[in-house]
Amino acid sequence: MTQKGFQDYYPDEYSHCYGCGRLNKNGMKIKSFWDGDESVCRHTPAQHCTGGFPDKIYGGLIASLMDCHCAGTAAAAKHRADGFELGEKPLSRFVTASLKVDYIKPTPAGLELEVRAKVIEIKNRKVILNAELIADGAVTAKGEVIMVQLPDEAK
Amino acid sequence: MTQKGFQDYYPDEYSHCYGCGRLNKNGMKIKSFWDGDESVCRHTPAQHCTGGFPDKIYGGLIASLMDCHCAGTAAAAKHRADGFELGEKPLSRFVTASLKVDYIKPTPAGLELEVRAKVIEIKNRKVILNAELIADGAVTAKGEVIMVQLPDEAK
Repeated sequence: MTQKGFQDYYPDEYSHCYGCGRLNKNGMKIKSFWDGDESVCRHTPAQHCTGGFPDKIYGGLIASLMDCHCAGTAAAAKHRADGFELGEKPLSRFVTASLKVDYIKPTPAGLELEVRAKVIEIKNRKVILNAELIADGAVTAKGEVIMVQLPDEAK
Repeated sequence: MTQKGFQDYYPDEYSHCYGCGRLNKNGMKIKSFWDGDESVCRHTPAQHCTGGFPDKIYGGLIASLMDCHCAGTAAAAKHRADGFELGEKPLSRFVTASLKVDYIKPTPAGLELEVRAKVIEIKNRKVILNAELIADGAVTAKGEVIMVQLPDEAK
């Protein structure tokens, strides 16, 4: 895929995340995109990312996908709210203040998963989002996430 | 380390988790133990498990550690509440209903991390726990977790 995701617009020094950093050689390198008012990320987990059962996905991966996807969505949403197009300048980096995941049903392994997020509120440096994990057309987990914008000059 | 952790007492068919399954060849294989009224798990993340910054741990790993450690602690606590010693029979398997992580401060990479959990309530098949992630003596994240016991015959 050559389309740029939100994470491709992070400054280099913030691009080392195992989940979404384009500079993490061993990472999952997830990418997030706008899809109307929502954002979407599609990811097929590696074969070893199973839960207790060998045919289900482990909960930590689901939390990770929601976390990285919501950080990217928060950054893109704030960027847009501030009046910028994607690519006009690097995105600000957001870090997670709080991540809550409700696991609705087991998530099957061996499939491409979809994570969707919706921005609920942007309040100064804070962005609140809801997220859903979808597998084979069914919502298997829901997330509530609070992201906080780092100052652009932070290290 | 030869001491058996809670996860060593899971039945084989529930031991495939990337985070804590002893049968997941590529997994982290975390182990949890009682430490008085609390439970403890120590884990040094792999070098690539960094966050946006190369010297910090990514949030998804922190969520994963809390998730697996609390599932094990819930199983061991229910086992004990039901009157059994560890090893007397396999532990029941618990799955995550809800996982909330509050990230207090960045977690430094390159260190052994400690996850501690405390059982708040056991109510039939549900166990509610609080967790803390500790790095270099400081609490960097706090968790609130609800675990639900699977029927022992479930697949």
